Amino acid sequence: MDLRELIDLLPTGAVLTYPDVLAGYRQDWAKDPAAGTPLAVVRATGTADVSTTLRWADEHRVPVVPRGAGSGLSGGATAVDGGIVLSTERMRGISIDPVTRTAVAGPGLLNAEVKRAVAEHGLWYPPDPSSFEMCSIGGNAATNAGGLCCVKYGVTTDYVLGMEVVLADGTAVRLGGPRLKDSAGLSLTKMFVGSEGTLGVITELTLRLLPAQPVQSTVVASFATLTAATEAILAVTGALRPAMLEFMDTVAINAVEDELRMGLDRDAAALLVARSDAPGDHAAQEARIMLEACRAAGATEAFHTADPEEGEAFTAARRYAIPAVERLGPLLLEDVGVPLPRLGDLVTGIAGIARRNDVTVSVIAHAGDGNTHPLIVHDPADPDETERAHRAFGEIMELAIALGGTITGEHGVGRLKKAWLPNQLGPEVMDLTRRIKDALDPHGILNPGAIL
Amino acid sequence: MDLRELIDLLPTGAVLTYPDVLAGYRQDWAKDPAAGTPLAVVRATGTADVSTTLRWADEHRVPVVPRGAGSGLSGGATAVDGGIVLSTERMRGISIDPVTRTAVAGPGLLNAEVKRAVAEHGLWYPPDPSSFEMCSIGGNAATNAGGLCCVKYGVTTDYVLGMEVVLADGTAVRLGGPRLKDSAGLSLTKMFVGSEGTLGVITELTLRLLPAQPVQSTVVASFATLTAATEAILAVTGALRPAMLEFMDTVAINAVEDELRMGLDRDAAALLVARSDAPGDHAAQEARIMLEACRAAGATEAFHTADPEEGEAFTAARRYAIPAVERLGPLLLEDVGVPLPRLGDLVTGIAGIARRNDVTVSVIAHAGDGNTHPLIVHDPADPDETERAHRAFGEIMELAIALGGTITGEHGVGRLKKAWLPNQLGPEVMDLTRRIKDALDPHGILNPGAIL
Repeated sequence: MDLRELIDLLPTGAVLTYPDVLAGYRQDWAKDPAAGTPLAVVRATGTADVSTTLRWADEHRVPVVPRGAGSGLSGGATAVDGGIVLSTERMRGISIDPVTRTAVAGPGLLNAEVKRAVAEHGLWYPPDPSSFEMCSIGGNAATNAGGLCCVKYGVTTDYVLGMEVVLADGTAVRLGGPRLKDSAGLSLTKMFVGSEGTLGVITELTLRLLPAQPVQSTVVASFATLTAATEAILAVTGALRPAMLEFMDTVAINAVEDELRMGLDRDAAALLVARSDAPGDHAAQEARIMLEACRAAGATEAFHTADPEEGEAFTAARRYAIPAVERLGPLLLEDVGVPLPRLGDLVTGIAGIARRNDVTVSVIAHAGDGNTHPLIVHDPADPDETERAHRAFGEIMELAIALGGTITGEHGVGRLKKAWLPNQLGPEVMDLTRRIKDALDPHGILNPGAIL
Repeated sequence: MDLRELIDLLPTGAVLTYPDVLAGYRQDWAKDPAAGTPLAVVRATGTADVSTTLRWADEHRVPVVPRGAGSGLSGGATAVDGGIVLSTERMRGISIDPVTRTAVAGPGLLNAEVKRAVAEHGLWYPPDPSSFEMCSIGGNAATNAGGLCCVKYGVTTDYVLGMEVVLADGTAVRLGGPRLKDSAGLSLTKMFVGSEGTLGVITELTLRLLPAQPVQSTVVASFATLTAATEAILAVTGALRPAMLEFMDTVAINAVEDELRMGLDRDAAALLVARSDAPGDHAAQEARIMLEACRAAGATEAFHTADPEEGEAFTAARRYAIPAVERLGPLLLEDVGVPLPRLGDLVTGIAGIARRNDVTVSVIAHAGDGNTHPLIVHDPADPDETERAHRAFGEIMELAIALGGTITGEHGVGRLKKAWLPNQLGPEVMDLTRRIKDALDPHGILNPGAIL
């Protein structure tokens, strides 16, 4: 494919073809070994560049893989051979309107950058993936990303009021706007959230913001058994709505403790970290209720701190669990979710899958909303272990489906989970998905191989 | 069209063809004078009946107008000549899971019935259209309905986690489920919310619930000018997030006072009713802040009550405004919305439109989210006044669009606002809408004439 026309149409330096640059854009964090090598990377400087690229690609039937910060965990940004990787990392504008409590943000801004910019106006953008310091807001919208606060505050789609999105043929359209209420026409904004770059490329987001939250109270509790921990989770969520309710199993506790040396109980089967952000002394009240619930469920140790730094240290420990467990070996990373009453069945079922397949699976979880991250440790140099790890990866998704859950709570389907999607959705929903895809991207250039 | 095959396929009594029954299903509350006369009304008893009806209609190319409680205000359920009105009013099951805080509800349940059923479990379904005692939850989902609490708690789509929906060809599909987080595939659930029966017929909803809210504090304030009232609105929303912030103009105040005799200030240009539902004494604190904001903006009278009955009386007065103003004459009912800083421009602009067209327009508003209900009073027997009223109806929508707003915040486009939708969305978004419609309903049988 001759790239000269595209190079001429775009600003100088926007099209990169150096082999080592291309190598850096082949994979996202899913590290898909089947990743292809792109023809070129386009680093768009704005909507016009995205339009130009898609118009050219649609005309020449060249596949385009949209990419944010490349921190995706399902291979949604895995490059395909002969395609373009279209990066939005340079589209980083932001404007904030404190009166409507909205921000208009470029897709290339990191989640943490959005949080910091709005905090200057006393505002808060809630969704908080553990990777918030390195994931982009555009990628968050493309995957309908979640995080720790979602148990109380919802997920990305709940904060996207509008967007500019470029369709497969290069047409840029504006959807929604800085209005909480808008019933004019189909809910197209919401349709593009979570579409993983298969329907269009988001070039701007209008985000809903909340007032900054008060300082939080944090509860930390250790449990000798998984059953006691899942009982505590149900007791806490039954009593109130925590602002966070996180879970780490013994593998994760020990991996984190190896690195951070903060005195976590290495003998515990599970650790819960919960938070309240109720106003004033209500936070302490809620913390006491959560503490009581943990103790009644048999916590071996449980305490409460109103000190924000101490609370943040435990939250950071939980966020650090994935990189810490990764020190044990490369990971196959899941994000299966189930309705909360089935969480215990999921966690014990995963332990069984690990045993039967003779692999280490560490489970961390956004426990309050039933969304778990089983981390399957394996050695890719060991073909037998790799096969067992991949078998466990599939069995965990099948277990989640059997428990009425989802194969992905917040990472998206990408390419790694695609084979299991029909099992969850069924043929009719897959057909519906295909009809929408074909209507919006008739030549199939947008992120081919993702979701479908 | 021979209905015998359909009558044979459906349960006895499901297909009604008596002329006076048909007459009762020709219009919704929009009272569209252009309503057609349907061939038949199908009162489905369950998903199977909906599937059977759509399969038959798709095969025979018979238009189907889905209908909930018939309380729509944009003509979304206006019957078309030679079509079927498919009513979900008999699909009224509900099951509630207090652990996941979700309910699975039939579309024919009234919003108030859902609220009451979940309240028995200490739970709350927030969206609260003023018509909540007579509008159906299925219709709420079809229009992405709003209400009074949305300023703090969001709109219907924020509470729909899943659904069963029957597609144009009769295929029933299940989307989403009782999981706050789910990134598996396209966000199809959200796409059907607000689609006004043009893409499918919702036969079951999985709703997210919140814990029941504490008793609320209510602030009531009167203003001598519209400008003072809109200043107070911005001051209140700038200081905190009210649980409700409602507006009535002098016409509405007097119409309500004529009926309810509760001592509203008949000389006021505007009345605000605001609420806090913060926990414990924080509600009183927030009420004091709102009271101060109203006084600083020049309220002629302002008071605060922590008595729930007294607070509810003022909220009920606001809810009663539409029927009260309707006593002055038949209404053309708007629900235009703008970004909050433009609310003053919208309200004063509407006054100018009323003056220029020599019609009475009363404005009530969910002021805190910029969503207004201009009520255009006119006498349909007076062709000149009717023409001026319709001109004002269009000009108000054009004003909202010019102010960066929407022609419909919560009622939907239906048939009455369709002509203005392209002005708001533009040709590219209309084309995108058309592509999705054609992909899902290739024979165009679903609610033809609504939205598109």
